[in-house]
Amino acid sequence: MRPRLWNPEMELMSHSETRALQLVKLKSLLNRVYEQSPYYRDKFDRAGVNPQNLKSLEHYQDYPFFDKDEERASQEASRETARHTFGLHITCNPRSVNRVSSSSGTTGSPTYSGFTLKDREITNDNQARALVRLGIEPGDVVMHASVLSMWIAGIPGVDSMMAYGVCLVPVGALSGVERVAQIARDTRPKSIKCTVSFAQYLVKHMEERTGIDPATLGLEKVVVFGEPGGSIPQIYEPLEKSFGGAMVHDIMGATGCHSPTGISCEEHNGIHFYAEDNAMFEICDPESLQSLPIEDGVEGEIVFTGLERECGPLIRWRDKDIIQVTTEPCRCGRPGPRMLFKGRVDDMLLVKGVNVFPNAVRDVINKTSDLTTGNIRIVKSSPGPVVPAPVLVKVEVKAGLPDQKKQTLAGDLDNAIHHQLRFRATFKFIDEGEFELLKGATGKTRLVEEANQ
Amino acid sequence: MRPRLWNPEMELMSHSETRALQLVKLKSLLNRVYEQSPYYRDKFDRAGVNPQNLKSLEHYQDYPFFDKDEERASQEASRETARHTFGLHITCNPRSVNRVSSSSGTTGSPTYSGFTLKDREITNDNQARALVRLGIEPGDVVMHASVLSMWIAGIPGVDSMMAYGVCLVPVGALSGVERVAQIARDTRPKSIKCTVSFAQYLVKHMEERTGIDPATLGLEKVVVFGEPGGSIPQIYEPLEKSFGGAMVHDIMGATGCHSPTGISCEEHNGIHFYAEDNAMFEICDPESLQSLPIEDGVEGEIVFTGLERECGPLIRWRDKDIIQVTTEPCRCGRPGPRMLFKGRVDDMLLVKGVNVFPNAVRDVINKTSDLTTGNIRIVKSSPGPVVPAPVLVKVEVKAGLPDQKKQTLAGDLDNAIHHQLRFRATFKFIDEGEFELLKGATGKTRLVEEANQ
Repeated sequence: MRPRLWNPEMELMSHSETRALQLVKLKSLLNRVYEQSPYYRDKFDRAGVNPQNLKSLEHYQDYPFFDKDEERASQEASRETARHTFGLHITCNPRSVNRVSSSSGTTGSPTYSGFTLKDREITNDNQARALVRLGIEPGDVVMHASVLSMWIAGIPGVDSMMAYGVCLVPVGALSGVERVAQIARDTRPKSIKCTVSFAQYLVKHMEERTGIDPATLGLEKVVVFGEPGGSIPQIYEPLEKSFGGAMVHDIMGATGCHSPTGISCEEHNGIHFYAEDNAMFEICDPESLQSLPIEDGVEGEIVFTGLERECGPLIRWRDKDIIQVTTEPCRCGRPGPRMLFKGRVDDMLLVKGVNVFPNAVRDVINKTSDLTTGNIRIVKSSPGPVVPAPVLVKVEVKAGLPDQKKQTLAGDLDNAIHHQLRFRATFKFIDEGEFELLKGATGKTRLVEEANQ
Repeated sequence: MRPRLWNPEMELMSHSETRALQLVKLKSLLNRVYEQSPYYRDKFDRAGVNPQNLKSLEHYQDYPFFDKDEERASQEASRETARHTFGLHITCNPRSVNRVSSSSGTTGSPTYSGFTLKDREITNDNQARALVRLGIEPGDVVMHASVLSMWIAGIPGVDSMMAYGVCLVPVGALSGVERVAQIARDTRPKSIKCTVSFAQYLVKHMEERTGIDPATLGLEKVVVFGEPGGSIPQIYEPLEKSFGGAMVHDIMGATGCHSPTGISCEEHNGIHFYAEDNAMFEICDPESLQSLPIEDGVEGEIVFTGLERECGPLIRWRDKDIIQVTTEPCRCGRPGPRMLFKGRVDDMLLVKGVNVFPNAVRDVINKTSDLTTGNIRIVKSSPGPVVPAPVLVKVEVKAGLPDQKKQTLAGDLDNAIHHQLRFRATFKFIDEGEFELLKGATGKTRLVEEANQ
């Protein structure tokens, strides 16, 4: 039996049908922004492109990218000259915006995303696709335990889950482990949604602080996001065990489109991307930024275009994530290319001239030894991406590990990293419970620290 | 020109039409809960009432009350025997619940309120009535700066403001003054919604911490709730001035009904209650709990019945607020009886055998002298409501007040309290900036403290 889908017409399209639909929607979008936005008209003119001439998706490669710096500048300008904060690149009346999201503002002033009613409806449709793939029916109890905020995983998630008709328990992550545990015990959610690190935090502290064993909550699904752990066996397997056999699913969004856009299945085989009809993506070479053919195994920087976005359409948005795409059918029977997060362009380190992602280092360490807990942090001695070898890595090890075993472990890890990532490393082992996780403003764990900070 | 209303058919009904509609809806509700809920059938049978016999609203006085303790016990029982947390008194299928709210849980385990889609729709209608009375149109920017949580003023407020079509900026109060200020400057809200004390906090700290003067934000409406300050000139007038002439409006809800249910107008003349078609209220004598006739000036404990509530209908809910009702027409031209919050039944102190509300003490102090800032706290030496006279009151006074003026002030305040509230008081004056506000879990300011705590 094929697994059920929310919107089979869109989710089951063949590759060529998808491409044809994308071309139609893209033409409409590009013509709209060219006609309605002096900002885009000027930008396209300068790049020498005109939507009238777009005959195939290949022509789209000539269009200029959009990124956070440009978005911020465009929004600053619209605040000064147009009395709204959605940027000079918007094409809708700002009064048709119904809900505002913002970035966390950790790297400068916040940037804003507006959603019209139609934008909300597409988001709702995408959320429903995820929920149906999870086996969640209207009426099932779902606990929202990620931060309730303007951030894209906050209020927009609450909004779209209610629209689907779940029994939503919006407890939020900031309520703390005690309240999350008590309310989960009282309301018996079938599914909980939170960041990877909050799930780990619950596992670590719930029983000791509340007497409630997370395995007894009756959860069937733990939906995690925001960090790569949801697709890494060393991270999701202990979570599944601690939550009494609940299955961990990794959910992803797409900046500038209608998040969420993909969710992993019970095969834990990458994230099924189910939203190609509204969240068109390209994979670009991280150096040349040339668009690469979408073939099985292709890897590079993902670039998104929200195809029917009304407020603030972002044309060729550089999301700064490095993604590997799998196009082979999944054993689960569900459609959609699968995506594996490899790292952030901004987090990329340069060791002996080679690009290294912090979570690739974590992956190697996790796969090499089960004496570690999965928590690591790379120590840099200066700002910028260049890190001289040997690279110092702090590694949390399981409680009570004797010194002699630590020495052997250091050798094993150095060999594995040298073999797989081509650089030498040294290690500072930190005992379980002593390792302090560093968090960014949105709750994501930071894998790099600067010495003396 | 009469001010515009959202739902004139309901909001403009005469008293007799309202009563007739309430009787019809009440009969339907009582028959439904009697037929569908063994819990209510048993409760009504024990009280000797049968909805078949309800011929007039006067008969409703024979029905038993519902309160927090009963709700908590009913919900504990439903968790044990019915695998849901909405209480044995619900009449809907728990799978039709779409959104869950909870109490803050400060006085024991949290209690839960479920909202079906229809419950959400009535809430949305009531929210729209408030927004239209505020002069807020779809597309206007509204900042939600109260806590984003399961509490009734959190996610439900977000949900219903989006449904009306404002451009919602859900910044939340926990983001802190810096982020609220920055996002307000960027998004230019017409209106901000927050607790009274958060509004005061913004006024006190925004400019010093962010360089942004709240008077320059361009706000037209500051909607406050959760504390009585929004109807007290000594509190709202300084707020209006600090927010550059924005008008402060006081909004109220009704536990067990479809909040919000009332909002004050530009006359600052009590809160217009606009939801009598779905949030029926009675005023009861606080001692005898006998229902009092709704006449101009009547004062007592307010008892609510949510007339079309699908999930968890609460029959004769004791909200524990003491309210004074005004039925005289308001100069603003808007309909609806007006309500003035006098105090909480649970906060009522007993001084020399007389009931005293902490905020009545605050009111007297505020009205007697402009040397005080409006912040006070009554110090009790033991738990329970009994406080021996003279009552010790901590009073915040304006910066730099000389000792001699403090002595005169103490005499003035003691005389005023003695004259108006019939007890003697002593004062501990605390200089502006040194007075630490005590907050409950929902951000409300506590006006009573126990010594040695």
